[in-house]
Order: sequence, then C-alpha cells, then structure tokens
Amino acid sequence: MLPTHVTLDLSGERFTVTYRLTGDEDEARIKAKAICVEQTVEFPVELLPAGDIATEIVGRLESFEAVADKRFEAVISYAAETASCEFPQLLNVVFGNISLLPGIRVEKLELPAAVLDIFQGPRFGRAGIRALLHAPHRPLLSTALKPMGLSAQQLADLAYQFALGGVDIIKDDHGLSNQMFAPFQKRVERCAEAVNRANQETGGRCLYMPNITAQAGDLTAKALICKESGAGGLLMSPGLTGLDIMRSITTDDRINLPMMSHPTFQGSFVTHPDNGIAHGVLFGQLTRLAGADLTVYPNFGGRFSFTRAECQQIAQATALPMGTIKPSFPTPGGGMRLESIPDMLEVYGREVVFLVGGALYRRGPDLVENCRYFRALVEGA
Amino acid sequence: MLPTHVTLDLSGERFTVTYRLTGDEDEARIKAKAICVEQTVEFPVELLPAGDIATEIVGRLESFEAVADKRFEAVISYAAETASCEFPQLLNVVFGNISLLPGIRVEKLELPAAVLDIFQGPRFGRAGIRALLHAPHRPLLSTALKPMGLSAQQLADLAYQFALGGVDIIKDDHGLSNQMFAPFQKRVERCAEAVNRANQETGGRCLYMPNITAQAGDLTAKALICKESGAGGLLMSPGLTGLDIMRSITTDDRINLPMMSHPTFQGSFVTHPDNGIAHGVLFGQLTRLAGADLTVYPNFGGRFSFTRAECQQIAQATALPMGTIKPSFPTPGGGMRLESIPDMLEVYGREVVFLVGGALYRRGPDLVENCRYFRALVEGA
Repeated sequence: MLPTHVTLDLSGERFTVTYRLTGDEDEARIKAKAICVEQTVEFPVELLPAGDIATEIVGRLESFEAVADKRFEAVISYAAETASCEFPQLLNVVFGNISLLPGIRVEKLELPAAVLDIFQGPRFGRAGIRALLHAPHRPLLSTALKPMGLSAQQLADLAYQFALGGVDIIKDDHGLSNQMFAPFQKRVERCAEAVNRANQETGGRCLYMPNITAQAGDLTAKALICKESGAGGLLMSPGLTGLDIMRSITTDDRINLPMMSHPTFQGSFVTHPDNGIAHGVLFGQLTRLAGADLTVYPNFGGRFSFTRAECQQIAQATALPMGTIKPSFPTPGGGMRLESIPDMLEVYGREVVFLVGGALYRRGPDLVENCRYFRALVEGA
Repeated sequence: MLPTHVTLDLSGERFTVTYRLTGDEDEARIKAKAICVEQTVEFPVELLPAGDIATEIVGRLESFEAVADKRFEAVISYAAETASCEFPQLLNVVFGNISLLPGIRVEKLELPAAVLDIFQGPRFGRAGIRALLHAPHRPLLSTALKPMGLSAQQLADLAYQFALGGVDIIKDDHGLSNQMFAPFQKRVERCAEAVNRANQETGGRCLYMPNITAQAGDLTAKALICKESGAGGLLMSPGLTGLDIMRSITTDDRINLPMMSHPTFQGSFVTHPDNGIAHGVLFGQLTRLAGADLTVYPNFGGRFSFTRAECQQIAQATALPMGTIKPSFPTPGGGMRLESIPDMLEVYGREVVFLVGGALYRRGPDLVENCRYFRALVEGA
C-alpha cells in the first residue's frame, strides 16, 4: 500500500521551464499537464498520496498560451528540491522522459538561487578571457589544428605559425583524441611549447586549448597534463562525455583553465524546430551552467544549417542574466568565409570569437600571412 | 605550411556506418561525400596532403543506393584508428558534427574486432540475468519504486511488497537521485534490506537496482555503496551522464553488478525519422557497447510514441551479432497495460523484461496480490 498522505519540508523555491508544444489546443493542454507528471512523479495522478507530492512535487502549469498556429507555450514550474542539487537530475526534470515524445521543445529556463547555487558557471567568462588575451574590446580570432593524421610535431608547426600570425585561441580539432598519429600527451606538449615560443617572440598572448574529450575517468588527468604542459585552456565536447563532466573539470581548482565547448553529437537536440531544446538554451544557458567560457556552434551561412535568428538566439543566451553566472563567448564557426565577417559583426557585435578553419588555408600557402590578414580584419572591425 | 605528403602505419581494419540520407539523389550524393570529410579530417579536401590522410583517414563511400522516394542509404567506412580506441571518439566519428545537419540518420554499425576490442559489453547479458534469477525461459517482470517524494522507508515498504509478490527486478524510478525526501544511501540500504528480506521469506531471487545517475565523479562511489548494501544491480541514465560512464562502471570488477539503462534525455536522437540515430542502434547496439544488460525504452501502445516496428528493431538489435558482446534484454515500459501483454509476447517472444509501473497499482490496493497476478500472466506466457 502507498501512504495516504505525505507532508514534505520544502523551501518553496521553484524553477520554471518554458515549453513550446505542437498540436491542437486540446492536445497541447493535455500534453502540458502530462509533462507536469511525467517529469516528476511519473505516476497515475489519481493514485498519488494526498499532500505535498500532489501539490508541490508534481510540476505546476503556470501559464499556457497560443503563440502561432498549432503552437503553444506552456510555462511549468518545478520544486527546486526535485533537481536534487545535481546537474544531471536538473536536466532530467527539464527534459528527461519527454525527450521521447515528439512536439515538445524547451524554449527557456528560469532558475532561482536555490538551483543556480549548484553551479559556478564560466570561471573566466568574457571579461576573464579578454584579460588573459589583453584584448579588452575587439572581436577575437580562433582556429583549429587539423587535419587528423598529422603528427604531433606537424600540428605543433601549424600552431606556431598561427600564433605568430596573431590568432588569439588555437584549439585542437575536436576529432583529435589520442590517435596513434598524434598521441595526446606528445601533441599537447609540442603544441603548447610551440605556441608559447611564438608568444615569446611576438609578445602575444595566444592560448592553446587541447581537446581533453576522452574516456570517462581520464578527463581530469588529461586536463592536468594540459596544465603542466603550459596549455592556455581546454576543449571538450559535452555531447560525447556528458555536460556534467565539463562542470566537474571547470570547478577543479587544480586545473583553473578556460574551457571551450564543442557542439559535436549535440545536434539532434536542435535539428527539428518542434522537438528538443532551443539553440539558446542548449548552447547558451546549459553550456554556461556547465562552465564553458566559450561556446562553439555552427554559424549561419556556413556549411551547417543554423539560421541567422538561431545564432542570434545563442548569442543572446550567452549573456542572459542568470544570477552570478558569467557570460560566455559565442564562438561561431563551421565554413566561415571572409565575406561573412561584416554580416557576423552585425549579428554579434564585438562580443564574439570568430572560429576560422579551412578559410585560413585558402588564401595562399603562407599561413602566418593569412592569419595576419584575418587578424587585421578583426582588429578593424 | 602543411606537409605535402603523409604516410601512416594503419592496420587496414575499418568500421562501417550505414546512413539514411534525405533529399534528391544529387543532394544525397553530395551529403554522403561531405560526411566522409566532416566526420574525419574536417578540412578542405583539395588542400589535404597527398598520401594516407586523403586515401585512408577520410571516410570512404562504400555504397550508395536509393531505398525509397528521396531516401538513400550510404555505407561509409572509416579507418579503425580514427576512433582512437575510445567510445566517445567512436561516437564522434559515427555521428559527431553531422548531428548538426538535418536529413542524416545512423541506421546501422558494423564494427571489426579492432573496434569491438574497446568494449566488454554486458557483463551478464541475457543468460547471466536469467541465471541470477533462476528463470531460464520465461519473460521477466520488472517495476519501479515511485513516486518521488516518498521517504526511503516508504519506498522500501513498496519494494518489500513487490518482491513478495514475485517481481523479478525492482528498480528505482529514474528520477530518484539524492533528494532530501529519500537520500541515496539511506534509500539504497533500506530498499536492499527489504528486498533481501522478502527473498529470504519467499526463496525468491528478486534483484533491486538503485539509480546511481549522479554528478560526474560520484557514480563509482554510488555503485560501490549499492554493492555494499546488497543491491542486485544498478540503474543509470546514460543520456544524462554520457554513455562512456556506463562503460566505465560496468567494466569495474569491484562493482560486478548487472546494469539497466534508462532512455531519459536520449529521445531527441530518435524522435524525427529523418534525423538522428535509429532506435536499434541507440537502444540496442550502442547501449550494449556501453555495457547495459537491460535496455529500457518506451513500448508501443503506451503513453509514448514508439511504433511496433521501432520496438521490434530495438529487440533485434539487442541480440545482433557483435563479436563476443553478449545480447541484452529489451525492457519495454511506459504505460504498459495488462491487455497489451499478448501483443508484446508476439513481438518480443520470451526474451523480454516487462517493465510495469502504474498498472501494478491500478488493479486494487493489495500490491502483493497485484504483483502475483502479473507474475502469473508472465509465467503463463
């Protein structure tokens, strides 16, 4: 037998999630009420014990309104205690089981102090990254070390040229892991040395961010190797490892390095406009909660399909007020062309990191010169 | 400057991924070739060094054919070395960046020994679970402890009744984490004790599987607490934690407990038929690689929207030959009704775990009696 009545000692603090629902009004209302149950007690409502489980633990439909033809917006609040002061369980309440249902999209999170307290957010944030780079105002320039198959030394030679040419942030390509061609530790040591040597020659402050994405249990050790090798930051793909591992790395005081987040394997959350998680929530809010100082995503007009509006939404969410959580840097990349820079400046202003890959090679064989050209464009912006 | 020629010492072993592509034939062919590049070198092909990077590292389009109107199937092979003997990097090559593009769906994986060697797979598998339960042939019966908000003792009281009634596997609801209502360690200790007490009374072998989904770095400790407390297995939600953490828990010899995988937060990979990862690959192949002995997913005809065919695909994939990787148990749940059992038996045969939640309560107030009723149905099957 179930208890007939349950009383709980709750704080009264609640977080709210805005869901976009697809369907007729009746269907959407039923769906909104089903979400309140599915994401919390997952239990026949009529059989619940009386008291606080039914009134406080079950999600509460705070508002419901039509926003377009067959599109409704439902704001649902949940008791802060349901998230158990844990990021994975917060994600579970926000979009766990209902991810398995079509026609539901998470549009916005509003988190009270009781939930934000779980998170440190970006350790450096926009201001911290600018301070490290001595670049208080201008857009920043980033590139990636690739292609997979080059040796550690060959990648380091590229890194040296990029740093000489004035690139601010050089990251590993997110596919560079621990392949035999360029094993992790050797690659990190060689590339960090190359970038730091270039910095000494130019007086620059270029940051090298190796990819620490790895098997569970290996990431902290890899981050510490980066630290010891003189790397200037870290790259991780939370879609591959889980978002919470990023939080654990970025809150580790022994590591204390900027974190760049890569969107690989996260695309299914955003590819269909009626399902999943809105671009701004995933690449903005959640990635900031995970502690990323820089959030990479495919720019509009490149070889991916994000629209200008979706990119704008991400950029806005990187600075959306969330308690003391610092703003992160939008880092659009993926098939950027020179000609797109003016348009990008219009969308992002100067609070942006331009991630340029293949285009740096296309201008001609002198990579240092190509980088200088891009850097001048960015400085002129 | 990039090197002009690169030679690599490769094994020649390749894994293949079958992709379903949406669009006109020309578009689909272009997409197939783009995948070969995007998932590996992510670099302008015309600028690649000559030699093995261009011929071996770039994915190879092995076949391309129309399968329906505006639907094509492309089989692409990748050098085993690109996966770096790591699960996250294997996922990255299979569906990393291209998850950000619409109209691409992973339909099948074929992995050679060089890649399968990364994995242990299910430690127990179907045969091992049957041996633990002394149930060599019949379908198995499972249920969940809920609703969230009950105390550890109240949940343990439920667990005792379920075990007395003959349920084979009792799992925590996947939303039970470490909430103040029923803190993890207390819940695990009380529920394990209750189930083991019932087993002593009945001579049964019911397994209690607590939810260890937690913050990164806490899962191993939680699994060890389960072990020490006499729990019979573990529940994890790899969508929340990352698939590779499940692999790391299931390969830890100190833990040595069956693992049940819950699909929460993984739905966006499957909700749209043209995008993402096919049901069988995600809940069958990948979840087996991660080491799950039991894979939970929403059954057809319940409150979720998986079709009969999709569920059939999952069931098939749980036993698809993959080297020495053992078969896992399909564990359909989510709004199961008594009336659906005959139909489920037709789809799954006896190699299935029926996960029954609310329906166990709906028959009347005597939970032990309700469980006996379900168990008799299952035994008669």
